Amino acid sequence: MNVHADDQYAIGVDFGTLSGRAVVVRVSDGAELGSAVHEYSHGAVETRLPATGAMLPPHWALQGPDDWRAVLREAVPKAVAAAQVPASKVIGIATDFTACTILPTTTEGTPLCELDEFVGRPHAYAKLWKHHAAQPHADRINATAEARGEPWLARYGGRISSEWQFAKGLQLLEEDPEIYARADRFIEAADWIIWQLAGVETRNVCTAGYKGIFTAASSEATDPAHDGGGSPSAEAPTGTDGDYPSREFLAALNPDFAGFVDDKLRHPLAPLGGRAGNLTAQAAGWTGLPEGIAVAVGNVDAHVTSPAAGAVNPGQLVMIMGTSTCHVMVSDQLSEVPGMCGVVRDGIVPGLWGYEAGQSGVGDIFAWFVDNSVPRSYAEEAERLGMSLHDHLADLAAAQPVGAHGLVALDWHNGNRSVLVDHDLSGVMVGQTIATRAEEQYRALIEATAFGTRTIVETFETAGVPVTELIVAGGLLKNAFLMQVYSDVLRRPLSVIGSDQGPALGSAMHAAVAAGAYPDIRAAAASMGKVNRDVYTPDAERADAYDALYAEYTALHDYFGRGINDVLHRLRRLRAKAHS
Amino acid sequence: MNVHADDQYAIGVDFGTLSGRAVVVRVSDGAELGSAVHEYSHGAVETRLPATGAMLPPHWALQGPDDWRAVLREAVPKAVAAAQVPASKVIGIATDFTACTILPTTTEGTPLCELDEFVGRPHAYAKLWKHHAAQPHADRINATAEARGEPWLARYGGRISSEWQFAKGLQLLEEDPEIYARADRFIEAADWIIWQLAGVETRNVCTAGYKGIFTAASSEATDPAHDGGGSPSAEAPTGTDGDYPSREFLAALNPDFAGFVDDKLRHPLAPLGGRAGNLTAQAAGWTGLPEGIAVAVGNVDAHVTSPAAGAVNPGQLVMIMGTSTCHVMVSDQLSEVPGMCGVVRDGIVPGLWGYEAGQSGVGDIFAWFVDNSVPRSYAEEAERLGMSLHDHLADLAAAQPVGAHGLVALDWHNGNRSVLVDHDLSGVMVGQTIATRAEEQYRALIEATAFGTRTIVETFETAGVPVTELIVAGGLLKNAFLMQVYSDVLRRPLSVIGSDQGPALGSAMHAAVAAGAYPDIRAAAASMGKVNRDVYTPDAERADAYDALYAEYTALHDYFGRGINDVLHRLRRLRAKAHS
Repeated sequence: MNVHADDQYAIGVDFGTLSGRAVVVRVSDGAELGSAVHEYSHGAVETRLPATGAMLPPHWALQGPDDWRAVLREAVPKAVAAAQVPASKVIGIATDFTACTILPTTTEGTPLCELDEFVGRPHAYAKLWKHHAAQPHADRINATAEARGEPWLARYGGRISSEWQFAKGLQLLEEDPEIYARADRFIEAADWIIWQLAGVETRNVCTAGYKGIFTAASSEATDPAHDGGGSPSAEAPTGTDGDYPSREFLAALNPDFAGFVDDKLRHPLAPLGGRAGNLTAQAAGWTGLPEGIAVAVGNVDAHVTSPAAGAVNPGQLVMIMGTSTCHVMVSDQLSEVPGMCGVVRDGIVPGLWGYEAGQSGVGDIFAWFVDNSVPRSYAEEAERLGMSLHDHLADLAAAQPVGAHGLVALDWHNGNRSVLVDHDLSGVMVGQTIATRAEEQYRALIEATAFGTRTIVETFETAGVPVTELIVAGGLLKNAFLMQVYSDVLRRPLSVIGSDQGPALGSAMHAAVAAGAYPDIRAAAASMGKVNRDVYTPDAERADAYDALYAEYTALHDYFGRGINDVLHRLRRLRAKAHS
Repeated sequence: MNVHADDQYAIGVDFGTLSGRAVVVRVSDGAELGSAVHEYSHGAVETRLPATGAMLPPHWALQGPDDWRAVLREAVPKAVAAAQVPASKVIGIATDFTACTILPTTTEGTPLCELDEFVGRPHAYAKLWKHHAAQPHADRINATAEARGEPWLARYGGRISSEWQFAKGLQLLEEDPEIYARADRFIEAADWIIWQLAGVETRNVCTAGYKGIFTAASSEATDPAHDGGGSPSAEAPTGTDGDYPSREFLAALNPDFAGFVDDKLRHPLAPLGGRAGNLTAQAAGWTGLPEGIAVAVGNVDAHVTSPAAGAVNPGQLVMIMGTSTCHVMVSDQLSEVPGMCGVVRDGIVPGLWGYEAGQSGVGDIFAWFVDNSVPRSYAEEAERLGMSLHDHLADLAAAQPVGAHGLVALDWHNGNRSVLVDHDLSGVMVGQTIATRAEEQYRALIEATAFGTRTIVETFETAGVPVTELIVAGGLLKNAFLMQVYSDVLRRPLSVIGSDQGPALGSAMHAAVAAGAYPDIRAAAASMGKVNRDVYTPDAERADAYDALYAEYTALHDYFGRGINDVLHRLRRLRAKAHS
């Protein structure tokens, strides 16, 4: 890698669930020159509050904001050192975060959990995305919205998640009203970290739209060719035109909740790739970066991955495949596609509608199977071969022709987000015989998730939103057999992101835009994005065989998922009753 | 155990798939005084013909008749020695056999495979019950019978098995016509072994009815109170009144098959417990038993177990639970109960209709699960606890309340015999989540087999054949958790056979009847049968909870099993195509 004296660099910082990663990227071509990871000292706080040792209730998940600052103090300088570039040549920094991860602060942005009086109060901490204790509040939000015919509900597939801002806010109000009252601001960590870097509060259009029920006006999106990403667009309407749910709706949930938006959330929204401000002296001290360089508006991990994979044009569907799969795509079409997590104008690329869909369980289903349903002899053989049990099963499964296992499964072990939006569904396996082997069921589960993806892609297209390319990012990329199954099942080539730290790269690209090195994220993606086209291509014969299995999947999907036989819900209720 | 000088003894010999067991039983009270097992030197011949080493085609299973004679030579004398009783006090011998296990012989009963010229011809050997290579012939028998409207088809649940006499006979004719032509007799091993003992050919009413399509006239069964089992009943009609399929039907299958019944099967039928003849000098030499003692008419393992468990009255359903479950019951009602393996007059107890139903997969489903779907950590923990993996899983499963697993399964991993009579079905598991553990799926499979039994019991009763008591025999008795599940699911107490060698005991009881020590098998059962009543009783609360799961089972049973969604058959065809 040639390093020239006049090269400029951007820093991307990816805040994950258990650690943060900083990467140093060359602005001219996206070369990743150095990176460093910092593990949070408290990880995800799910059982006891570290400050007091007090037990948390079930389904809670908290985080301490100083763990995030530590990433700035530790990982950023290490990444710069690893890159062996002069810090003086860094022109901007940007971040992406898990979402909805949200915390109550003072007007100055001080987390309430950092006030001495509140260190022992769980509700004063940041609630991590996977805090699931606000389900009753989410249920009331959905029921009330449906009863009132709130127009925004359809944008979210008819269902607001318990993970999102309003459910967590309502829980805070009703379980700890004092903390709620003292929370001058209730802010996404994605935006709070920017406040730490630039010293000013900003709110990004992405989390406001996807996690905060800010719905843009549904007139045509602005012409992307004329929309600059480097600063808030002057053209209307943009993703910042629109509104949150009304005071009346909030009051219907709880009279004391009426001011939630106006008092704690509302703030001008800033576009992705916009410049939130300049790096403060304090943050320069933490990071070792030059004071005054550009700090980009906050962003979300899945959404920054899209430009990192070069996907900034309508119809390019990026699938970030890990424990679950997040599908993000931009389009110039606004349509009510069933089962979306959200449709947000400017939510991924300024000037376009950003769609997000999801499969609730993918890698975690395979992990569950490997942990719970594979016999000892396989584990021993994998050890002997010096390979992971996943790889061993994939090798065995790959040796069979399509359909040879006689199985078809439904991939709902963790519920179904898209397109059914039903987290109370569960898995189904059909066709087992006393000759069925572990690798066959493993393969059937992989195929089921591919069928789930095909269902989503077909739903986009049926709703009038064309899907022109599939690009894969995320940890499951390493399973080549799985990738080939997806290509065959979807009957399409698969392109693959060219980085194994896609979110951090995508953040660095937004930093470059915020610093003015590129006019917008589309230009940055053209120079810095990395994609390998058509790495996997479908085999016609296998694809034909999969069509027959997909037809079976669809019939079972509708039978078990659309209420023809509501057995999965009844089983869940029996389970809950038995445990009560 | 007091042994008196005037005690008399009967010998029962149970011929299984891999070995034969002889037991010495005291006639007065059924006390089992000694037993011995002899393993067949060739076991079940499924890959190579021992005489030549030639490979057998797929799905073949043969046996060599001298392995059976060896049981008489080896196990009988050892059992008598173990019992420490004088051989001179043995008054009779009886046998039970696997069925349909059938062989071609000369008019003298010499197996064709024992003629020098035929030792290398696979078709000259006995075809074991689990020889499944005659499926195409069975399919033709069923299609032809259905097309011609043969009235006997309904007695067999609408389907003749590939395991039975006519399918095996047709295969013999069409694949080795020379052996077929030389087979003066085509005879069940159950009857052939009696020929060896008594020196005369007999044919028992049980295998003729259940495996040979001999259908008794459907007028009322004789009054059991007046029907003696000790000798062929003089009263008409009995199970010996009736007939085999017609020459016209056989000719429709193959013109050369027209004489199959008349030339190779037909012989006066003898009642169960009847005296076939007297022990020959040669057989006395083999066994060490007195020449001239009673030899009972041949019988079948499942059917002799019924009186061994004291079940000789209408409505007492005996379930012999092992790899599969066989349900036998006598009734004074003749009804076309869906899914029976057969309904045979005098087929279990003279004077009554004998019903046989079956579940194709029970213990083998649990074994499949334990071998293929339980992770290493469970195997290690079971080892640490010094218990079997089955017991470890059962203990873990038993700790949960009913329905806590959120699962329901269909127990068709080995097809479904009763009540759907469809061996091309396969298993289904519904409701898995990423929290589902191995013991929960294990329990769901146990419950599924219990639901399958409940379906059979309810089908009997719906058809007007009352079930008044459930009595369990067989290897699964050792799983107390499973027994309790069955009791709860069935909402009935379970009685349990009082012997762990039920078939051999049942045979010895038939020997006692044949020797005249009892007037009939009912009297023998009263003195010699062994049952522990109501060992398991249902818990009302669990039974209520199971009712909800059973309703789900029934809905899925009908959806997947009665053609509403024929996915299981389509998956099987896809599997066959992929493997072709």
